[in-house]
Amino acid sequence: MSLEQTSYPKALHRSAYKAQWGKNKKHRNIKLQWYLDTMSDPKIEEVLAPLRASVKEQGDLVRKLKAEGAPDLDVKKAVAELKTRKKLLEDKELSLTPNITFDRAKMEDLLKRRFFFDQSFAIYGGITGQFDFGPMGCAFKANLLQLWRQFFVLEEQMLEVDCSILTPEPVLKASGHVDRFADLMVKDTKTGECFRLDHLIKAHLEKISADKKTAQEVKDLDGMNKNEMAAVMQKFNMKSPLTGNDLTEPIEFNLMFATQIGPSGLIKGFLRPETAQGIFVNFKRLLEFNQGKLPFAAAQIGNAFRNEISPRSGLIRVREFTMAEIEHFCDPKEKSHPKFGNVRNTEMLLYSACNQMDGKPAERVTIGSVANETLGYFMARIQQFLVKSGVDPNRLRFRQHMANEMAHYACDCWDAECLTSYGWIECVGCADRSAYDLTQHTQATGVRLAAEKKLPEPKIVDVCEATPNKGILGKTFKKDAKAITDALAALSLDEVEALGQKLAYDLHIGDQTFNVNKDMVDVKKYQKTVHVEEIIPSVIEPSFGVGRVMYAIFEHNFKQREGDEQRTFLSLPAVVAPLKCSVLPLSSNTEFMPFVKRLSAGLTKVDVSHKVDDSSGSIGRRYARTDEIAIPYGITIDFDTLKEPHSVTLRERDSMGQVRIPVSKSSS
Amino acid sequence: MSLEQTSYPKALHRSAYKAQWGKNKKHRNIKLQWYLDTMSDPKIEEVLAPLRASVKEQGDLVRKLKAEGAPDLDVKKAVAELKTRKKLLEDKELSLTPNITFDRAKMEDLLKRRFFFDQSFAIYGGITGQFDFGPMGCAFKANLLQLWRQFFVLEEQMLEVDCSILTPEPVLKASGHVDRFADLMVKDTKTGECFRLDHLIKAHLEKISADKKTAQEVKDLDGMNKNEMAAVMQKFNMKSPLTGNDLTEPIEFNLMFATQIGPSGLIKGFLRPETAQGIFVNFKRLLEFNQGKLPFAAAQIGNAFRNEISPRSGLIRVREFTMAEIEHFCDPKEKSHPKFGNVRNTEMLLYSACNQMDGKPAERVTIGSVANETLGYFMARIQQFLVKSGVDPNRLRFRQHMANEMAHYACDCWDAECLTSYGWIECVGCADRSAYDLTQHTQATGVRLAAEKKLPEPKIVDVCEATPNKGILGKTFKKDAKAITDALAALSLDEVEALGQKLAYDLHIGDQTFNVNKDMVDVKKYQKTVHVEEIIPSVIEPSFGVGRVMYAIFEHNFKQREGDEQRTFLSLPAVVAPLKCSVLPLSSNTEFMPFVKRLSAGLTKVDVSHKVDDSSGSIGRRYARTDEIAIPYGITIDFDTLKEPHSVTLRERDSMGQVRIPVSKSSS
Repeated sequence: MSLEQTSYPKALHRSAYKAQWGKNKKHRNIKLQWYLDTMSDPKIEEVLAPLRASVKEQGDLVRKLKAEGAPDLDVKKAVAELKTRKKLLEDKELSLTPNITFDRAKMEDLLKRRFFFDQSFAIYGGITGQFDFGPMGCAFKANLLQLWRQFFVLEEQMLEVDCSILTPEPVLKASGHVDRFADLMVKDTKTGECFRLDHLIKAHLEKISADKKTAQEVKDLDGMNKNEMAAVMQKFNMKSPLTGNDLTEPIEFNLMFATQIGPSGLIKGFLRPETAQGIFVNFKRLLEFNQGKLPFAAAQIGNAFRNEISPRSGLIRVREFTMAEIEHFCDPKEKSHPKFGNVRNTEMLLYSACNQMDGKPAERVTIGSVANETLGYFMARIQQFLVKSGVDPNRLRFRQHMANEMAHYACDCWDAECLTSYGWIECVGCADRSAYDLTQHTQATGVRLAAEKKLPEPKIVDVCEATPNKGILGKTFKKDAKAITDALAALSLDEVEALGQKLAYDLHIGDQTFNVNKDMVDVKKYQKTVHVEEIIPSVIEPSFGVGRVMYAIFEHNFKQREGDEQRTFLSLPAVVAPLKCSVLPLSSNTEFMPFVKRLSAGLTKVDVSHKVDDSSGSIGRRYARTDEIAIPYGITIDFDTLKEPHSVTLRERDSMGQVRIPVSKSSS
Repeated sequence: MSLEQTSYPKALHRSAYKAQWGKNKKHRNIKLQWYLDTMSDPKIEEVLAPLRASVKEQGDLVRKLKAEGAPDLDVKKAVAELKTRKKLLEDKELSLTPNITFDRAKMEDLLKRRFFFDQSFAIYGGITGQFDFGPMGCAFKANLLQLWRQFFVLEEQMLEVDCSILTPEPVLKASGHVDRFADLMVKDTKTGECFRLDHLIKAHLEKISADKKTAQEVKDLDGMNKNEMAAVMQKFNMKSPLTGNDLTEPIEFNLMFATQIGPSGLIKGFLRPETAQGIFVNFKRLLEFNQGKLPFAAAQIGNAFRNEISPRSGLIRVREFTMAEIEHFCDPKEKSHPKFGNVRNTEMLLYSACNQMDGKPAERVTIGSVANETLGYFMARIQQFLVKSGVDPNRLRFRQHMANEMAHYACDCWDAECLTSYGWIECVGCADRSAYDLTQHTQATGVRLAAEKKLPEPKIVDVCEATPNKGILGKTFKKDAKAITDALAALSLDEVEALGQKLAYDLHIGDQTFNVNKDMVDVKKYQKTVHVEEIIPSVIEPSFGVGRVMYAIFEHNFKQREGDEQRTFLSLPAVVAPLKCSVLPLSSNTEFMPFVKRLSAGLTKVDVSHKVDDSSGSIGRRYARTDEIAIPYGITIDFDTLKEPHSVTLRERDSMGQVRIPVSKSSS
């Protein structure tokens, strides 16, 4: 589509974005090829070879220990050493990648100055780990989420929900978050200042790294438990790095924010640490909404909260953040996905757990090679979404979690990681949560969170039912009769059968035993034909950290103009750019104003977000300003505009190319 | 636009919605006329006349007491009585309005059954005052918010922000929420059960209303303070209505949820009770983003939290809710609004404080009659938005707050109230917060939250500056020198002048007094030309309770088919309907399937949300099902579809009318 052939509002609309986007994509593919060339450079491989061998050696040891059923502590130690070696390999790999010029301070300056985001409550001194998105950050975020909705919810016909943030304790007790969602910390005994223990030990050991051997010994802490870490603290006689004061023993600190729901102080609640639980507790309603059929996916966009001990790295580790999560419920035995064919040939950079243990690099393969089609389908779709939103495919990989780093609910997990100046950061997790959560909530509530699956053919089954004779039970046991009736209803099939075969049966309730005889219970045995079986669905969960995705997109799209380092800009794809267009009169000449007004009104009418900049700066300065806030297109009204037929220039941000187009009648 | 002339995706798009909407609007205007006729019915007015007179009598008394500067308690008592009389009038008015058939239980059944929304954590017993939105409620909400963004943020070029929910205490201390955002409650002394005191007393008095005189005496409690209410409790010897146990003394209970930010337990925080504060604390950044110019508006959509003592009435009074707020910052002296001309002739039902005190009804007037153009502009825009979203203009009024019911930060406030089965409920507030919040935060932080306003012409002003002589001050006052230097810097112009005129000056810092002499401070007096003056902007705040707006729309659009009370449906405007379209094969005939797939893919491509219902129910039953979830258009594939040229039927929900249209090539 030629821009000159069309009127401007259309030129700025959907198809223009797509055309524009198409160009970027092509450009990216070229860079990708270059990256692959680098990675197979024999000189680089020569440097990396010994590091790879060292990882493999340790990976093999871990496998051997596990196979032999070695003591837990030995396995943990071996895994810790494996991670250290992996880190060395990765650091070296990154140092050998051709340098991507990137000046983080400069980017942060732009983002802060143009208020994409900044620290919350700064006039009150600020709170670490909390950020406010200004007009440009907020619009970018809203566009990203709108694209996400179109890409996932609409395209896959997902059931989007919007659940409560405040969550009562029993829900998070069942999900495992109350017990397991904790970090270890220590406090300065005098000032009360808190430190995350693993960070503290790492920092301490890096400081004394002259004594390298000692450091090496305890460098990796992820596998250590509380006592082991306490021992390390004691061995090195660690003090507060700020005051030199003594530190407390390690304290387990739950990462959830606690509060009281209602005025009585009796209902303890937490701010949800993930949006997923809201979906799980609504599983029955959602299944019913889907007319009882599997598979289906539910989705949710919303805020979650983690009371990090030491937030850091800007948007990467924060206390309050937006997530976009999908829970895809499916038959655990069903390994195929109906739309897998659409993505089978998608090329992806996969870094399997196996390759990580073998010291091998990530591999570029087609997703068709992954065993679980549903997991594979979502991974491919995640990649498509990220690339469409502005993530550089050249700096994107999917890394599989190794067995020991999985969250407590997951049985397999692939993270979409983006390469940034902080290293590879996890932006999207894609986990197989199996039946974990539904099972936990079923156990906690007694409400069966299960689906019915039609059997290939009807099945005849034996049924054994115990009907209590309430009259006799009441007379015999008086006030205990109710508890006994309930206990009888809860008996398993085998127990009912046993009951039917005996003259008397000992029923245990708590500490008490009740002797129930034949007359008190009527046991019936019969056969019935069943057409369905009950299954607890498996859950595949793509979970997006929206702030992290945004951060990666910022880094991947931060550019400097060739020959002018001071002129920085953001080349965000038009589909997510905060504003789509600027309207700039060449000067403050009053003759331009009617055109500015008319164009602005016309753009508003067709829902194109835009910014009129009629301030006094030179046109070049104003272009630079709109480039900084990532506006992809600029319309300039100049003296030629005043002539019939009226025309304006349309400028493209990335190429700075300009074309002249007529002011369409539709803008009037 | 004729539906037959166009292909279906276009028919379902924007212009079709507008056409559809246009129809509804016309229809509504007819109803409106009918409402106005009723209100001026002389028979009804005859019944209301004595009640109106009684309100006016009391209103006049309140005015008189205020004018005379009567004691606070007397005014409060008179206001309480005024409210009672107003309530009697309003109840009578409502009872005389022709009955709008509405069965709340039936609507709630539909909303629950089709999972528009339902109680959160129901499988855990649920928590009062918290709701989860299911797929249809969530999509409706997302569409409503999207429309809000287009209508306000895009159209008015507002600066949308997205700020933190967790808010440190000092911010809410300054805003007045820590001290004033409280309700009174009492606890059952044995069970700890809590009751909101005003609700409890009301319920108690209604119960014993046989003794009407006594009840009347203390019926209205809004104006009473803690001691007065305690006295009422004692007088009637009130006990817990649930257990009959004794109750505690009234306790002030802050409605904000408290938590600890960070692990140290030292930073107290609250979940924000409104989104507005996030905007105020970012005022400087936003003003800068707007290149220092006034007026501008910032907007925010997000969740807020209030720990209600006794949540009730479904979505109306909840603990966690979404707000959409606008803060429009303007010069307090500027009374005009540039776009007021666009809305000047908008007809609105206004219920002024004055009319409320005079016992007069609300009046239908054009907004042009309101004094403050900015407030008036937003009120008109709020009405336009609500009506576009599905609020019945027949059941919408703007009620002005009376002086005694204003929030602590407001100096004028008009609520958009919707008439529902719960009575008139506040859905949108439109308050004049004046300079309250910016002034409070300036005082708390020392950061001046002000704007500069260009003077009509430059002004010459006297300047008086005190420059401390640090050397001498240090020698004389040693450790106190710093405090003295700071105190000198904080002196007002007059004080500096006084200092310059004296040989010695007593400087008071805390309890201490320091004698400062001429040599210690260099006082300079000179004149300078200033071009700007500093002003603290006034704030106009339209604040939308999204859940309440949704609830009003549900009630106003809940319908029953004529002649079949069981067939209920929701006639939501297409622009906010959860799904725009259904795709229904007439039967399970496999020949229909390729058309279903093709149509669904075509709709997805043009971003039209839709639902394929190929389940086995009869077509009539499936229509009923899609009507229940408010789908405005249905496409049916039948045997005629199979014939060339392929065609489908398009059905409209409200009229149930059908037209036959060709399956466009664009859907393939």
